[in-house]
Amino acid sequence: MGKRILVVGGVAGGASVAARIRRLDETAEITVFEKGPHVSFSNCCLPYFLSRIVPESKRLIMMTPEAFRTRYNIDVRTESEVTEINREKKTVTVANEGKTYEEVYDVLVLSPGAEPVMPKSIKGIDRDNVFGIRNVVDIVKLDTYLKENDIKETAVIGGGFIGCEIAENLCEAGLKVHLIEAADQIMAPLDFDLVQILHKEMLDHGIDLRLHTALTEIGDGFVRLADGTEIPAGAVVMAIGVRPLAALAKKAGLDLGERGGIKVNTFYQTSDPSIYAVGDAVEIYNRLSGKYTLLSLAGPAQMEARAAADHICGLATRNRGFIGSSVIRLFDTYAASTGLNEKTAEACGIHYDTAYVIPSDKVGLMPGSRPIHMKLLFEVPTGRILGAQAVGGEAADRRVDVVSAIIHMDGDLEDLRDVELCYAPVVGTAKDAVNLAAMVGLNVLHGYVKQVPMRRIRELVESGAYIVDVREPGEFAAGHLKTAVNIPLSQLRTRLDEIPTDRPVYLHCRTSQRSYNAARYLMQHGVDAWNIAGSYLGFSYYEYAQDVLEHRDPIMTEYNFK
Amino acid sequence: MGKRILVVGGVAGGASVAARIRRLDETAEITVFEKGPHVSFSNCCLPYFLSRIVPESKRLIMMTPEAFRTRYNIDVRTESEVTEINREKKTVTVANEGKTYEEVYDVLVLSPGAEPVMPKSIKGIDRDNVFGIRNVVDIVKLDTYLKENDIKETAVIGGGFIGCEIAENLCEAGLKVHLIEAADQIMAPLDFDLVQILHKEMLDHGIDLRLHTALTEIGDGFVRLADGTEIPAGAVVMAIGVRPLAALAKKAGLDLGERGGIKVNTFYQTSDPSIYAVGDAVEIYNRLSGKYTLLSLAGPAQMEARAAADHICGLATRNRGFIGSSVIRLFDTYAASTGLNEKTAEACGIHYDTAYVIPSDKVGLMPGSRPIHMKLLFEVPTGRILGAQAVGGEAADRRVDVVSAIIHMDGDLEDLRDVELCYAPVVGTAKDAVNLAAMVGLNVLHGYVKQVPMRRIRELVESGAYIVDVREPGEFAAGHLKTAVNIPLSQLRTRLDEIPTDRPVYLHCRTSQRSYNAARYLMQHGVDAWNIAGSYLGFSYYEYAQDVLEHRDPIMTEYNFK
Repeated sequence: MGKRILVVGGVAGGASVAARIRRLDETAEITVFEKGPHVSFSNCCLPYFLSRIVPESKRLIMMTPEAFRTRYNIDVRTESEVTEINREKKTVTVANEGKTYEEVYDVLVLSPGAEPVMPKSIKGIDRDNVFGIRNVVDIVKLDTYLKENDIKETAVIGGGFIGCEIAENLCEAGLKVHLIEAADQIMAPLDFDLVQILHKEMLDHGIDLRLHTALTEIGDGFVRLADGTEIPAGAVVMAIGVRPLAALAKKAGLDLGERGGIKVNTFYQTSDPSIYAVGDAVEIYNRLSGKYTLLSLAGPAQMEARAAADHICGLATRNRGFIGSSVIRLFDTYAASTGLNEKTAEACGIHYDTAYVIPSDKVGLMPGSRPIHMKLLFEVPTGRILGAQAVGGEAADRRVDVVSAIIHMDGDLEDLRDVELCYAPVVGTAKDAVNLAAMVGLNVLHGYVKQVPMRRIRELVESGAYIVDVREPGEFAAGHLKTAVNIPLSQLRTRLDEIPTDRPVYLHCRTSQRSYNAARYLMQHGVDAWNIAGSYLGFSYYEYAQDVLEHRDPIMTEYNFK
Repeated sequence: MGKRILVVGGVAGGASVAARIRRLDETAEITVFEKGPHVSFSNCCLPYFLSRIVPESKRLIMMTPEAFRTRYNIDVRTESEVTEINREKKTVTVANEGKTYEEVYDVLVLSPGAEPVMPKSIKGIDRDNVFGIRNVVDIVKLDTYLKENDIKETAVIGGGFIGCEIAENLCEAGLKVHLIEAADQIMAPLDFDLVQILHKEMLDHGIDLRLHTALTEIGDGFVRLADGTEIPAGAVVMAIGVRPLAALAKKAGLDLGERGGIKVNTFYQTSDPSIYAVGDAVEIYNRLSGKYTLLSLAGPAQMEARAAADHICGLATRNRGFIGSSVIRLFDTYAASTGLNEKTAEACGIHYDTAYVIPSDKVGLMPGSRPIHMKLLFEVPTGRILGAQAVGGEAADRRVDVVSAIIHMDGDLEDLRDVELCYAPVVGTAKDAVNLAAMVGLNVLHGYVKQVPMRRIRELVESGAYIVDVREPGEFAAGHLKTAVNIPLSQLRTRLDEIPTDRPVYLHCRTSQRSYNAARYLMQHGVDAWNIAGSYLGFSYYEYAQDVLEHRDPIMTEYNFK
């Protein structure tokens, strides 16, 4: 007989470990224990059942225990909770239908996942109209509750991936959604500037977005915020975060990390070499920050599972750590990110600078062409690529994928500038967004252009800084910064004498391209010229949601989102 | 005064060189000569005017000479042909409206582009209903001719990018199109297996595809093929290829390469260091094949232009050569490629193997999910990535872009396996096509699976090889190879005794995934098991167009394209 391999958890990581081991070793005896009724369901698709984009909940389940048995000779036991690991005896204790039994292992793999955080400090958290979404049972429970109680208004607590996707799908299902987030923005992987596009997308679709506010109480048909505000809500979805399910590991004396996840080595072995762990319950190494961290993403879970299976079967593996690449679609907008953002780079004390570009995702002449807002982070003075974010149409994630690949290969701005991407007018532009961002990054790194970030515009406008809008008069008339002077790029060379040389001059156009040309011209004529990153299109988005949410006066005559 | 810089050619490369030099050097005197009436038009969008996706021809023109002057202080002279380079005097001779004059240069940049090949050997090639498409004038001429002569039927000669896009847009405009190609396939960047999907796309849209046949004569309302066939065609578009416009350089005694393009060094200087050349007229270095070659792509032209401008202005540059990444959309299908394909890898004598996978472009549950046919080429025994091709929906090019980035960084299969791509169910799958292809590649490289290519299926079927179709009976009933045995993966373990051990066993399912599991199982039980790359979905496409075009009997009961 071959090795006895027990796997705890039958979703994503667990199922992948089991299947890969089977392919490598026909002799292994493989048993998978899953606490819930289903294995191998599509977690990531759960929210889409609410809007019936996934029309039936049973379609969320991809494989049955029967299929595991007949196809892979893998024994899958659902409704079976592993309650204890007995490391000396190399057994686990399994609870099923009120009974317990032991199973012997040679190798044990833990893939328990994570669970939604449900803070006891929130009054009413235990009410039956409060839901955490982790599996098919949870989403069906929520959906049934909404229907049976004819709920019209809901509160989603937390604006991460799950919270946002649940909010979107509730909204698509016709419900009023209040999205409550404690931070000053949703979607932490995005920086504060780019995320404003998503804030606007939420507002445009009628979602009541409440930032910077905490939930204190869940009552009968309402939730209460920290400032006392009462918001009507017949059902509440808690999505403020997940916690690794590490209790079983902890009880068995396995080492945990600082973030509460299971500690693993380069082979995904825990502190007991007979016990492996993969997926959302483990702490992974972020190769950019140099820190161990939690990462609840399906892709890395699969990779960890494969690596663990390979090591269990005696194959060579390597562990390069992770950088974290993710994307969310909210209504018509896609937002992708990889690597570090400004917050995480700052937290690591890494010297960095950014490039912000807003090219079209395909040639402007082509139907459906949309701007991509793309931001690139690179190390100073090396130009090493640290991260990227892109928000726009369907093609946004494509650009971030390329940057992710370059980061994985330790590439720099020159590498990114030189990457040859597939171009046809219907899929991109000859100078792709990725190449363009790298070129701008090199200009910044080499000092060919000085730039100020969008977060400084309001201060510049209010302090009477000299701001030149180099767009054409028609564009200026359709909306401009209240204190900007309009000198179109096409007139700048004949109106040079209007530009002061005794103070900084801030330039913008629609997407920063014309103003970059203007800045280069002025710099060579002794002007202290600064290009405003993001430009009018970028700061229309940047300001809009903040203005609406904070009820503040716009600094511009009209926003311009085109 | 600054340097006098003259640029020959005002499209793509030429315009980019001029603009970049201006940004770097305000003092330079820059003049651009363009033979035609327009500078800076969108070559790549020309075909889309025929279908009115680009509604007016004037929208193809992106910048006017006036805009170059006012915005960039660049003197653009259209209808101005540089007829001679006088290297001793450092002047060029310019012809404009019947007069000629000389202009002095410090630096000369050649960006003349390429022109359609119009072989004199074809009878009737000079007729006024024969068109080559190079610029806005050409496409308007063709369009006007079609309308004024009420043409209903056209012949497009050559199935490269331009030929295919012209054919598609003529078809979308309601004309009958005969597409005539001398080779056995269209779109040379794709291998013979994957290109069959495009052949089917052409056939499905009513294009009369004629492969392996040459044009011999263009007559009054018809074209004649080498075998004597006469095809009705009121207008003929010649798109068999382009030739670099190197005559001016040659006349000036500059070195040309073996392919007839202008020779340049690492800085894009010609054999005369005061003269640079960029774009379709130069021979570039392919870093995978190690050969100098012609590459008519807009992206590389832009990169060359920037590098030349930087070097002219004294900036550091680097030249990593090119690998060639491209994509075409034909109707609803996107086909992208990068690096080497089987033909070019063989021509270089590189040892390689392939991985062929057909994953979904997004989670199967999500609306609009489509299979991506993806093929990866890697070096044996190193696993270095050499190239990739993907055909499918809009997301096909995204996968190839990632592979291109990895090739640029000299990455291998493990690098590609480990790349973290942005995943959400609406944009991809947790195990992305790129990662999956790398995993399959590693399995092949490491000998965990043996595979046969699709081109061998017919022979296997006809020679009575033992082929097992491991799909479920319902799938088998809906279409199968005529000589295949159906043993579903779910029954294989109980029917092992049916499998012969004295001869090779060939396995397939729908996309190779189940058959890979079957192959691993059988290999570990002493069976000489081979997985058929491409599987039923792949070889339905592979066989269909060939069967239709060659009027041959199918080897399968029904094709299956889902």
